[in-house]
Amino acid sequence: MAGTSRTRVQHFAVSLDGFGTGVGLSREAPFGHAGHKLHEWMFATRWGRQMFGQEGGTRGIDDALVRQFSHGIGAEIMGAGKFGPPGWHEDPDWTGWWGANPPFHTPVFVLTHHPRPPLEMEGGTTFHFLDAAPAEALAAARDAAGGMDVRIGGGPSMVRDFVAAGLVDHMHIVVVPVLLGRGVRLWDGMESLEDRYDIEMVASLSGVMHVMLARTGG
Amino acid sequence: MAGTSRTRVQHFAVSLDGFGTGVGLSREAPFGHAGHKLHEWMFATRWGRQMFGQEGGTRGIDDALVRQFSHGIGAEIMGAGKFGPPGWHEDPDWTGWWGANPPFHTPVFVLTHHPRPPLEMEGGTTFHFLDAAPAEALAAARDAAGGMDVRIGGGPSMVRDFVAAGLVDHMHIVVVPVLLGRGVRLWDGMESLEDRYDIEMVASLSGVMHVMLARTGG
Ligand SMILES: NC(=O)c1ccc[n+]([C@@H]2O[C@H](COP(=O)([O-])OP(=O)(O)OC[C@H]3O[C@@H](n4cnc5c(N)ncnc54)[C@H](OP(=O)(O)O)[C@@H]3O)[C@@H](O)[C@H]2O)c1
Ligand SMILES: NC(=O)c1ccc[n+]([C@@H]2O[C@H](COP(=O)([O-])OP(=O)(O)OC[C@H]3O[C@@H](n4cnc5c(N)ncnc54)[C@H](OP(=O)(O)O)[C@@H]3O)[C@@H](O)[C@H]2O)c1
Repeated sequence: MAGTSRTRVQHFAVSLDGFGTGVGLSREAPFGHAGHKLHEWMFATRWGRQMFGQEGGTRGIDDALVRQFSHGIGAEIMGAGKFGPPGWHEDPDWTGWWGANPPFHTPVFVLTHHPRPPLEMEGGTTFHFLDAAPAEALAAARDAAGGMDVRIGGGPSMVRDFVAAGLVDHMHIVVVPVLLGRGVRLWDGMESLEDRYDIEMVASLSGVMHVMLARTGG
Repeated sequence: MAGTSRTRVQHFAVSLDGFGTGVGLSREAPFGHAGHKLHEWMFATRWGRQMFGQEGGTRGIDDALVRQFSHGIGAEIMGAGKFGPPGWHEDPDWTGWWGANPPFHTPVFVLTHHPRPPLEMEGGTTFHFLDAAPAEALAAARDAAGGMDVRIGGGPSMVRDFVAAGLVDHMHIVVVPVLLGRGVRLWDGMESLEDRYDIEMVASLSGVMHVMLARTGG
């Protein structure tokens, strides 16, 4: 490990039944049948509204926690399923969901079996496409992060892979009081995680529950 | 519906990954590989300790909520998997896990494909064995409850069946910060439940999360 650089999952949203995304993902529906359900709480915060150039928003615990998103982060790793809808790699013009100036402002490593040349965006975000095992990808991201933390950006499949590989130091999961019934589960394959992580849960008045998992002694 | 009699799930415990019991259920392990993990929080309460004839215990929100267990309850319905370990119906002497004086003190309807004659225990508990659809079982339990509420006692499979049949008015689910990885899931098949229930979550200092689901307008 490079000094005190940590790997962090930031405000990853799941339904009460544990799904991090729905079914039927497409260009029109980045979360499938989940629609906006997993992130309404976030768009109600001041930080969430600022992301869309809007005024107002809440200043409570939800807002305080989402602001950790970029604090101390030097790079992100994300899965191909977060970067674009199924089939994005067949579209040479696809540059992600986030427009010309994505909200990352750091190098972002996109794990994919269909790598392409790096994509430099406005505002400091460069997408690097990587066909590599989680530990290799993390080594690359740590290098790029210059001693800062690495965000494990999701979706649920790649978070599970990184947890299974023992590569995640901290997870902030937001349980939203909706039941998706179908989709991609976050918690699968994490049996006895409580033996390796301190787990703390706190409810927000907005109705969501923040779950913090911190590697024990980490 | 018979007057104001309601159907209630009381402090049903699930792991963070949504399992209401583990795998490998047996006479020695009523929750399989889950061991005591799902209920340690309850045995720390004053009410939980009293159940075992012990002094002390916490008096906070966990204790207050578990005390709802018998308040206003006139009957319980439980699944065969709660009444005994796999194969209990082949043992004519099996009378449940709870000794001579079970903690129910009302009629209890055990749903099973292997019915047997009623079993009258000490302290007011009588087990009735019923091979019937959820709605029929509820009608029988309501009759026996004399206008009081009916507890939907679990396990997870029968709770799911009763929710799917639209027969549950209130659920108090306790999310415990452990990951079981395997077992019987509670939340499956409840897609869009938030459209029909008000959902409230509150964290306890003990580390568990209480989730209250109340039928909207109910
Ligand atoms: N709930 C939240 O807060 C949250 C956060 C982020 C994203 N999401 C949502 O999650 C969904 C995507 O999640 P997902 O679980 O389906 O997919 P994902 O984790 O984003 O990506 C999985 C895919 O990434 C590629 N990949 C992963 N590991 C790799 C490796 N080691 N080497 C090479 N390629 C690798 C593979 O795609 P290929 O084989 O196709 O290249 C794999 O199928 C989207 O709906 C997104 O909007 C939700
Ligand atoms: N987490 C908690 O708070 C909590 C609470 C209660 C129990 N539990 C645990 O949950 C586990 C049992 O749960 P489970 O989901 O496996 O089983 P369950 O829900 O207790 O029982 C399901 C079984 O009941 C019988 N049954 C259900 N509906 C019926 C119907 N309409 N007609 C006839 N028979 C019917 C069937 O058994 P047969 O065909 O064999 O008769 C069925 O396999 C145990 O480990 C128990 O300790 C946990």
